Amino acid sequence: MTHVHNGAETFKEDIIRSFALAHADRVTRIEGASGFRRADGPLAGKTAVVIGGGSGHFPSYNGVVGPGFADGCVLGDIFASPSAEQVYRVAKATDGGAGVILGFGNYAGDRLNFGLAASRLRSEGIDTRIVYVTDDIASADADHAEQRRGIAGTFTVYKLAGAAAEEGLDLDQVEAAMRKANEATYSFGVAFAGCTLPGADEPLFVVEEGKIDFGLGIHGEPGISTVDWMPAKELAAQLVERILAERPADSGPRVAVVVNGLGATKYEELYVLFGEIAELLIEQGLELVEPEVGELVTSLDMAGCSLSVTWLDEDLERWWTAPADTPAFKRGTAAKSKFETATTTGSTEAAVEADTSSEESRQAAVVVRAALDALDEVVHANQEKLGRLDAIAGDGDHGIGMSRGSAAARAAAQTADGGVQSVLQAAGAAFGDKAGGTSGVLWGLLLAGIGEALGNSEAPDAATVSRAVRQSTAKLQEFSGAGLGDKTMIDALLPFVEELDRQTAAGAGLAPAWRAAAEVAVAAAQETAQLVPRLGRARPLAERSVGTPDPGAVSLGMIVTAVGEAFERGDED
Amino acid sequence: MTHVHNGAETFKEDIIRSFALAHADRVTRIEGASGFRRADGPLAGKTAVVIGGGSGHFPSYNGVVGPGFADGCVLGDIFASPSAEQVYRVAKATDGGAGVILGFGNYAGDRLNFGLAASRLRSEGIDTRIVYVTDDIASADADHAEQRRGIAGTFTVYKLAGAAAEEGLDLDQVEAAMRKANEATYSFGVAFAGCTLPGADEPLFVVEEGKIDFGLGIHGEPGISTVDWMPAKELAAQLVERILAERPADSGPRVAVVVNGLGATKYEELYVLFGEIAELLIEQGLELVEPEVGELVTSLDMAGCSLSVTWLDEDLERWWTAPADTPAFKRGTAAKSKFETATTTGSTEAAVEADTSSEESRQAAVVVRAALDALDEVVHANQEKLGRLDAIAGDGDHGIGMSRGSAAARAAAQTADGGVQSVLQAAGAAFGDKAGGTSGVLWGLLLAGIGEALGNSEAPDAATVSRAVRQSTAKLQEFSGAGLGDKTMIDALLPFVEELDRQTAAGAGLAPAWRAAAEVAVAAAQETAQLVPRLGRARPLAERSVGTPDPGAVSLGMIVTAVGEAFERGDED
Repeated sequence: MTHVHNGAETFKEDIIRSFALAHADRVTRIEGASGFRRADGPLAGKTAVVIGGGSGHFPSYNGVVGPGFADGCVLGDIFASPSAEQVYRVAKATDGGAGVILGFGNYAGDRLNFGLAASRLRSEGIDTRIVYVTDDIASADADHAEQRRGIAGTFTVYKLAGAAAEEGLDLDQVEAAMRKANEATYSFGVAFAGCTLPGADEPLFVVEEGKIDFGLGIHGEPGISTVDWMPAKELAAQLVERILAERPADSGPRVAVVVNGLGATKYEELYVLFGEIAELLIEQGLELVEPEVGELVTSLDMAGCSLSVTWLDEDLERWWTAPADTPAFKRGTAAKSKFETATTTGSTEAAVEADTSSEESRQAAVVVRAALDALDEVVHANQEKLGRLDAIAGDGDHGIGMSRGSAAARAAAQTADGGVQSVLQAAGAAFGDKAGGTSGVLWGLLLAGIGEALGNSEAPDAATVSRAVRQSTAKLQEFSGAGLGDKTMIDALLPFVEELDRQTAAGAGLAPAWRAAAEVAVAAAQETAQLVPRLGRARPLAERSVGTPDPGAVSLGMIVTAVGEAFERGDED
Repeated sequence: MTHVHNGAETFKEDIIRSFALAHADRVTRIEGASGFRRADGPLAGKTAVVIGGGSGHFPSYNGVVGPGFADGCVLGDIFASPSAEQVYRVAKATDGGAGVILGFGNYAGDRLNFGLAASRLRSEGIDTRIVYVTDDIASADADHAEQRRGIAGTFTVYKLAGAAAEEGLDLDQVEAAMRKANEATYSFGVAFAGCTLPGADEPLFVVEEGKIDFGLGIHGEPGISTVDWMPAKELAAQLVERILAERPADSGPRVAVVVNGLGATKYEELYVLFGEIAELLIEQGLELVEPEVGELVTSLDMAGCSLSVTWLDEDLERWWTAPADTPAFKRGTAAKSKFETATTTGSTEAAVEADTSSEESRQAAVVVRAALDALDEVVHANQEKLGRLDAIAGDGDHGIGMSRGSAAARAAAQTADGGVQSVLQAAGAAFGDKAGGTSGVLWGLLLAGIGEALGNSEAPDAATVSRAVRQSTAKLQEFSGAGLGDKTMIDALLPFVEELDRQTAAGAGLAPAWRAAAEVAVAAAQETAQLVPRLGRARPLAERSVGTPDPGAVSLGMIVTAVGEAFERGDED
């Protein structure tokens, strides 16, 4: 149970403000971003390691920013990816001219948002690499290792990459080091009890009393088995057996071991477990190098713990034992960085481009603004309903996230000058930035993509709108990697696009074509109730979501319906 | 809920063994003791700071052993004082010839055991000082500040004393520094939920859902008020108001601030609270010096937190910001100690004295052994009953503690050579060492004291036994500071002694006199149900103990009854 807060709405901002106040000597908050860089940064000529993900995992990620570890970090809302805009701003402010590694655990929302930020950074000439961590062997089998989630092994992988960068390795070398670290790192976790988000009355998920859930994810993602409680000695044996089963063929005897607690499984317990684990590993001829026992990647007050083992070679061991000096993790004596502080390379504010939009497009933008008003209104009116839907299988934040995004999009559209493209791109950027998470980045991309396809010159007609929606959807699908049947908003969006195409090809006007397509979307959204979501998503889904439609598909159905009604009202005027 | 353990019986030993395995480079386990000293110790000519208390508070106390902090630490069972024997062994092994400071939080059991250890150390020529921490302003009013408990401010006080000792100050100076640190440190805590001991089904105590218990102690000792949940901003204001109300008249603006979490109140929450607190303190013109936000003094997975403020002068600030390098807390760059490792000054095994006991006394020791057999049997038979009695108002460990102690006493008596004194002193030492806690040290002293009074020369008769019991009881009462009506074993022991005196003065033989006195003791034990315990005890007592007799008094009644029956059987033989 989260007891100390000022309400869920301000929780992340309160954490960030307070952390900045507590550690002003070590970290600098990035203006306008929910993230930090080390106080001596940006460092000229140093490969920048920027890590991040949802809040709620302290000391990950802001607790480990500093010499020998991360150069910067970006935080999303509790258990939700930061927005691409936030990632972009932190990376831009942390880059010292030698390029940026973006590191995160393998979750859908993070991959989308960090991926989008990387594209934008590259488009501005900042060489950017992405390395996501896949240490959780419970989340997919060895043949699908690339689909595995990131859990407590993220700590080790970020530490190793941070040390490699501090040594002075260039971008290619740090990227290679971090990939090697990830490939050498294997984790397995168990859970005893769920956590409760700030302001919530119910835990996010529950583990039955007296049971241990093997392989349960750190946000409650489904595990692989539920068993009766067992003594620490047996639990250690189970964890060690699973980890050793994947021991790489070429591994030596030296290992970095992390026994991590998720929040409510305390130090005394973690030490007892570590002792049993260490004895088993030593029996196998392994040599433990500076083991860590404690809370390094938490999940609020979730009860549970994990074992992470990293098979060390000479380089990895040197990076593991290298000094680090961060607010929450210190090792050895971190000397002053050999790099000098760089003058910041540029503003993170987007350049204002001259308005070249046509009068026709500026007129058409009035309809776009009305459509965004309708979008915002329907999302706000259904915020609680969407939250409840999401709470059945997820963390219940779909309503609040969509609501934040749609309000920001509406406001941005009001103040944006120019034609259809300008207004929709401003709205899309604002949506993605303020909503965060997976839905935020997808809706932001969808709106901006439609705008880009429509352009700023012509007054769109039914056929151009239909084509623009189809083009933007195709890009979205490519970006997200989701297909039909994965239980996402795509399951409502693709039928919508098809029907819109069919109607406009048959000569229907925009409003009636859109209305017919919206009806298809709403029906398709309801049908997602029968689906099982794809593996590897960052929320507790599994069987319990069967019977409930996907909240993203449902909100899409609502939104296209409301937008269609706005088009009809426009036709009537 | 404590989920990871191998059973309550081995929990402390498992923690200690595992901690030694994880941090062999930093700490050395003291052979035969449940404690550690820093790996570079003992340090010749350095004032040794030895801290300790019950387990369950990690990183207090083993997590903060190292340069710039504690030289050694000693751990009791969960929330129970270590035995005097354990304290003695750790202090003896840590002393580098310049004397020892014993530091602990102000709890009855710790005061008794550390006090006894100090006497023994002094008797061996090791200058030993005691400084107990009294930072918890909720536990007694300002006029009785010396009765206050130690909570999270212990962290600050130990840190300051450790830094002062590392600077090279002598024993008098470190003692003065630590007293000054304690006088400058004020804490106030709140609780949201209780913790559950390893293996227990029920929490040790509960806080009503949706409520905050102001001033609740870290072992569930009664607080001062229960209020409805309030936002972090309001909670911060309440904590700050209470702390500032006791601001010392001569204090400057510089403060060391610790926002401590008890276990399940997580980092994100602690930072949110810290931010609100910091803003209020800064508004008051105060300057925060290297604040600490985290888990420094925990209570297993208890939900709650506290604010500690230490008013710094130049010395205290230098010690607060001085380097420290321990397993769980590091600050700055701790250089190699200026002191050299000392050769250990001596064995901690007691010297074996030549047996000078008389034949009469050796014969009488047979009766003593039979009495100790009876003691052990009655305690074992009633272990669960005593545990249940203790659980109503305490932590339920009276049964298990007494059971461990009596078994050890019985075994020691079997193997001890010599007369009555030798056997009872061996039994008393074993009882105190193995039982731990408050009852352990008191029963250990009582048995050894009776032995000392009886001597090794004469065969005791009813009058000598009565006098010996009276003398030992008087010493015990002086040592414990408990009087009639404080709801302790003294409430049964004093009436027992009086009746035994009366009976023997009237000419009764030992067995009948003892039986009559035992009946009085049993009745007096039952009458303790009406009493309210004294303030300042380390367990959750308060009103809920009214109606239940004191478990220590009840076990005393049982034991003297069983011993009386053994005497009667002896008479029959």
